[in-house]
Amino acid sequence: MTAEDRNLSAVLYGIDDLRLEEMPIPEPKENEVLVRVHCMGICGSDVHFLKHGRIGSYTLAGPMVLGHEASGVVVRTGAAVSHLQPGDRVALEPGVPCRQCTLCHTGRYNLCRDVRFCACPPTHGALTGFFAHAADYCYKLPKNVSLEEGAMLEPLSVAIHACRRAGITLGSSVLIIGAGPIGLVTVLTAKAMGATNILITDLLPHRLEMAKKIGATSTLHIRSADKQKTVKEIVSLLKCEPHISIECSGSENGICLAVLATAPTGVVMLVGNSPPEVKVPLIEASLKEVDIRGIFRYSNTYPTALSMVASGVVDIKHLITHKYPLEKIAEAFEKAHTGEDNPIKIMIYCSDSNENFTSHE
Amino acid sequence: MTAEDRNLSAVLYGIDDLRLEEMPIPEPKENEVLVRVHCMGICGSDVHFLKHGRIGSYTLAGPMVLGHEASGVVVRTGAAVSHLQPGDRVALEPGVPCRQCTLCHTGRYNLCRDVRFCACPPTHGALTGFFAHAADYCYKLPKNVSLEEGAMLEPLSVAIHACRRAGITLGSSVLIIGAGPIGLVTVLTAKAMGATNILITDLLPHRLEMAKKIGATSTLHIRSADKQKTVKEIVSLLKCEPHISIECSGSENGICLAVLATAPTGVVMLVGNSPPEVKVPLIEASLKEVDIRGIFRYSNTYPTALSMVASGVVDIKHLITHKYPLEKIAEAFEKAHTGEDNPIKIMIYCSDSNENFTSHE
Amino acid sequence: MTAEDRNLSAVLYGIDDLRLEEMPIPEPKENEVLVRVHCMGICGSDVHFLKHGRIGSYTLAGPMVLGHEASGVVVRTGAAVSHLQPGDRVALEPGVPCRQCTLCHTGRYNLCRDVRFCACPPTHGALTGFFAHAADYCYKLPKNVSLEEGAMLEPLSVAIHACRRAGITLGSSVLIIGAGPIGLVTVLTAKAMGATNILITDLLPHRLEMAKKIGATSTLHIRSADKQKTVKEIVSLLKCEPHISIECSGSENGICLAVLATAPTGVVMLVGNSPPEVKVPLIEASLKEVDIRGIFRYSNTYPTALSMVASGVVDIKHLITHKYPLEKIAEAFEKAHTGEDNPIKIMIYCSDSNENFTSHE
Amino acid sequence: MTAEDRNLSAVLYGIDDLRLEEMPIPEPKENEVLVRVHCMGICGSDVHFLKHGRIGSYTLAGPMVLGHEASGVVVRTGAAVSHLQPGDRVALEPGVPCRQCTLCHTGRYNLCRDVRFCACPPTHGALTGFFAHAADYCYKLPKNVSLEEGAMLEPLSVAIHACRRAGITLGSSVLIIGAGPIGLVTVLTAKAMGATNILITDLLPHRLEMAKKIGATSTLHIRSADKQKTVKEIVSLLKCEPHISIECSGSENGICLAVLATAPTGVVMLVGNSPPEVKVPLIEASLKEVDIRGIFRYSNTYPTALSMVASGVVDIKHLITHKYPLEKIAEAFEKAHTGEDNPIKIMIYCSDSNENFTSHE
Repeated sequence: MTAEDRNLSAVLYGIDDLRLEEMPIPEPKENEVLVRVHCMGICGSDVHFLKHGRIGSYTLAGPMVLGHEASGVVVRTGAAVSHLQPGDRVALEPGVPCRQCTLCHTGRYNLCRDVRFCACPPTHGALTGFFAHAADYCYKLPKNVSLEEGAMLEPLSVAIHACRRAGITLGSSVLIIGAGPIGLVTVLTAKAMGATNILITDLLPHRLEMAKKIGATSTLHIRSADKQKTVKEIVSLLKCEPHISIECSGSENGICLAVLATAPTGVVMLVGNSPPEVKVPLIEASLKEVDIRGIFRYSNTYPTALSMVASGVVDIKHLITHKYPLEKIAEAFEKAHTGEDNPIKIMIYCSDSNENFTSHE
Repeated sequence: MTAEDRNLSAVLYGIDDLRLEEMPIPEPKENEVLVRVHCMGICGSDVHFLKHGRIGSYTLAGPMVLGHEASGVVVRTGAAVSHLQPGDRVALEPGVPCRQCTLCHTGRYNLCRDVRFCACPPTHGALTGFFAHAADYCYKLPKNVSLEEGAMLEPLSVAIHACRRAGITLGSSVLIIGAGPIGLVTVLTAKAMGATNILITDLLPHRLEMAKKIGATSTLHIRSADKQKTVKEIVSLLKCEPHISIECSGSENGICLAVLATAPTGVVMLVGNSPPEVKVPLIEASLKEVDIRGIFRYSNTYPTALSMVASGVVDIKHLITHKYPLEKIAEAFEKAHTGEDNPIKIMIYCSDSNENFTSHE
Repeated sequence: MTAEDRNLSAVLYGIDDLRLEEMPIPEPKENEVLVRVHCMGICGSDVHFLKHGRIGSYTLAGPMVLGHEASGVVVRTGAAVSHLQPGDRVALEPGVPCRQCTLCHTGRYNLCRDVRFCACPPTHGALTGFFAHAADYCYKLPKNVSLEEGAMLEPLSVAIHACRRAGITLGSSVLIIGAGPIGLVTVLTAKAMGATNILITDLLPHRLEMAKKIGATSTLHIRSADKQKTVKEIVSLLKCEPHISIECSGSENGICLAVLATAPTGVVMLVGNSPPEVKVPLIEASLKEVDIRGIFRYSNTYPTALSMVASGVVDIKHLITHKYPLEKIAEAFEKAHTGEDNPIKIMIYCSDSNENFTSHE
Repeated sequence: MTAEDRNLSAVLYGIDDLRLEEMPIPEPKENEVLVRVHCMGICGSDVHFLKHGRIGSYTLAGPMVLGHEASGVVVRTGAAVSHLQPGDRVALEPGVPCRQCTLCHTGRYNLCRDVRFCACPPTHGALTGFFAHAADYCYKLPKNVSLEEGAMLEPLSVAIHACRRAGITLGSSVLIIGAGPIGLVTVLTAKAMGATNILITDLLPHRLEMAKKIGATSTLHIRSADKQKTVKEIVSLLKCEPHISIECSGSENGICLAVLATAPTGVVMLVGNSPPEVKVPLIEASLKEVDIRGIFRYSNTYPTALSMVASGVVDIKHLITHKYPLEKIAEAFEKAHTGEDNPIKIMIYCSDSNENFTSHE
């Protein structure tokens, strides 16, 4: 390694206390690789930890490096690693499960109770220079996929997991409630799965413009609290009731709207984080045999996400609206927090030598 | 036909206004059979119509014959019917769908918007002497299945549909909330599907006794409002979290308990009719990827229900606790309404000549 | 009706004995509509009946009108039809099932033993002027879908049914064996379902060119009988073993290749009609838990096919390479039979007034 | 440890060269436990290795301990093991996968290319005194499950995996071809999953008697080579075509019979090892949309198998017909090879102190 090998890291010490500091470069274990981190997307959960010190029952208990949407270049491999070599460009799936419980054995490893997930206390994230990670959760990027796109596989994974569990398929009519970053990757993913009709709603019209640009077939600016009226507008725009409604707002209103709008035999997919309790007309779902499903992160999505990007089925780059070097991490988080300039995805570059880096100015 | 062929029918004219009167014997259409009705189970929904004149949005608009859990003997067949003959003993599946909509085409005919379902306004039920019904929704009973058991295929169908949609399979651990008639047939059905651990709960201990007798592996008398404590009791009794929770009480408490107790990747199945809105910790279900599903009646269950009874996989007769001739229908409904003597299933005999008839006195 | 209303029909009397003759205009039954047929695609099975008088156990027993890939305009509606009106442009799903057997009840109506399927003895096809058809199997075309595209929904349905049963989904790598018309619509459909890698093979290089043009990601001109070598070429081109192999050639070689090439947990889908018996290395499929599935026609595909075309997800028009008026049916069949000029889909126009008609000269 | 701790092992050196010899007691790794092996069932594959030195492409390359149906008592635990303790009685799932490939990540670990499976070259089996095994593939037996039953979880797993993949469910009519040990555990398992009609066939009538005793609803002694006639007999005995046919004979005849007999939409499950190539009427399967599926070992079956035995849903003990101490291993294999006395399952006891041991004399 060279003089470039400082390991600058973005460490969260407490609410609004994010510090950039040097950390020791970790040693990869037998089945791990050491990755020079290049790109890191900022997620709403990072901002939430910064501003509240916790998400649900996950509470910051000590200094923790942030960041879980990472890509980079392999610099060293553990003794038992054979499928990766130094120089390989990789995307990092941030959760590494125990591999030994029933949930791991059955392929539902995202629900493993002992999963270690980047930047979820007490596990450090990868907003750092060098990161050691399980080799089998590092995915080699082919030449035509950039490191930025590699980092974007993480939010894309959320959408894939949601769309899969929702059962979107060829010919589906889909309602997406909420046009934030996850709503937008869900548009891309639903379309790639064959949805022929995609209506997206939001309270803010400017978010709907982007949704339209990337493939939503129609948009609805929600202005009324009258849910039955909104259902009628949805049916009118889609020319049918949606088979599947993907709720990305996390609001009680959004959930109720999804339940009321969805066609018999359909699915309401809960993606947005809802409050501890919500008042819902469950009986309406039962009478239509509409299933209500939620997701927790994702599993077995990275190979799919990578195929989508590599084959050109989705163009995910457009969602990156802002770029910062790691040194300007405070500025980046401020932008993410205020929402000024309508950022969709903010990308951090952790390596000086990153050939992908292009300033956002 | 003979002098026996009066067509005495139990007609609901309004709240608490049930009249026994003669009705004309109907003519079977081309694809119908005329059935001499013998056995008819009384369902909670019949009692509800009698006492409230409506269920949800289904409102009594004119005189309507009650009853939808019927069996009988074919007396005449329509011109196009070939698989049934006069003399055949049959169970009647009470809902006849339009056969032409997408839901019918795809086999989800219970959700057909034009289904005509016995004793659901404005469609007459079969608590009558002679009933004309679509031949393909009449199922011939083999010799070893009694007409009483034929009538019991209807509640059994509800349980089959619920257990199927819940995904009960070999080795499942199942929590059933509510030990009324549907909770009890659910015990039988879950067991028949391979559930190895079945815990049933109720507020009334005497209902749990019957549940135990027919196959529940454990019972829990709910006395505390503390859901977390109840969850612990459930896990302790089942020796694991239930994979599947079947909510048969329709209460907000029951639904919340199901959500909290169910294991990751599991299913909460809503069978009991819940209020228009319930407050639920949906986020808890999402974090565990526990699906919430409901049912509306059933489809494609009668052949399965009949196989279960004919093969001896379930013994459904035990659930019949009270028997009345049609003439004593008022007494029967009174018993059903008050719950005196703890009736599980009350069976009405519509035909004098019924060889199955044995008085309950 | 006007003087235009002659009902010229293409009637098959025996091997190589196809006659154009006037037939009486049928009366639509209660649930039927009378359709002025406009477009009709010629299928390999039509040619096969013309040249052999039979397909498998289906044998011509009397004069039969050919044709089952039809679209047209509603001219009259039966008394019970409400969702269609005269003037509506429709695509006709050619199989009308009994609606009463278990297979119909469960939504697998293509397997109904009493299905009446156009141009399958003894049921007349729709290569005629006026055709009466079950209204619920006529699908109204929106303005942006042409009658030619309406006729193409039939071959598209075959591909949809095959791809659905094969389980193609986002990220699938797919091998398609055989680049005939069905292989080509399968390329379109697999792509629309999210397959990111589609390799198609054929013995004739010119067929592969078209496949490439419409979306195959790679092609393989089969020249060697060495299956293991071919498997290696497939894996090298796809950069992985195919998850799903769709066999459209019907040859023993093709089936064996599919079994050998497919990845563990994958599916071999048999679409081409194979000989009565084939020699297959089934043990190789078992060791990889690769399922072998076939299809018989399709069910519940027309709404999906129509959505695909209407939304622009597929462009199916390009596959129509030749067009003839009904009067030139002999010439059209000769072209289909000889394969001269490499026809993919030959379209017949049954109505003089067809505004869609454009000569192929 | 005590003087009892010799590690006598049954080592296969070559065809018909099985030697009993002392081997060093292994050290458990971090995530392993050391198990004192008590019970070991003999499987047809053990006999096949003894008599042929190979199975398919798995060839004996050096001395190998036989045996993969094991149970025993934990004597030591690796440093990272927390869910087991010395003294725990356990069943051993014999295959330990790599945990890192896509097949492991998705829960299909039986198909992992790097799985190490007991007594499959070059991995040693457990017909030995002390065996070190991955702790998460050791399943603690509750008090009411004996060590013999623990060993039986392995063949039971094969049946569970087959019945699951075949989709047996409540009301299924099942045809089982071949009444050997696997056919018999399949009867038990199909019944436990809710199959209401189970017909089993064999060429040897005495095997059918046992099948009848443990729950087959009918049996058919195959005497004719006329498959169409046999299909008729099957349909007559089952009173319907079987929904699912489970082929346990591995013969071409059996496979063809399964294809011909199975009802539309059904499944033919291949369990018996078939020859490298078989001639099959695949077109008949396609026309009925009958899927053909095979299995390779099993995954995620042990918890289910254990629940079945612990809850009393199956009684697996009856299948153990012969018992030998390890010292008489030659005699045991001779019995298994000749089939004298019609052994179903032969159980070997590897520990002198085995409190379960009861002589077979």
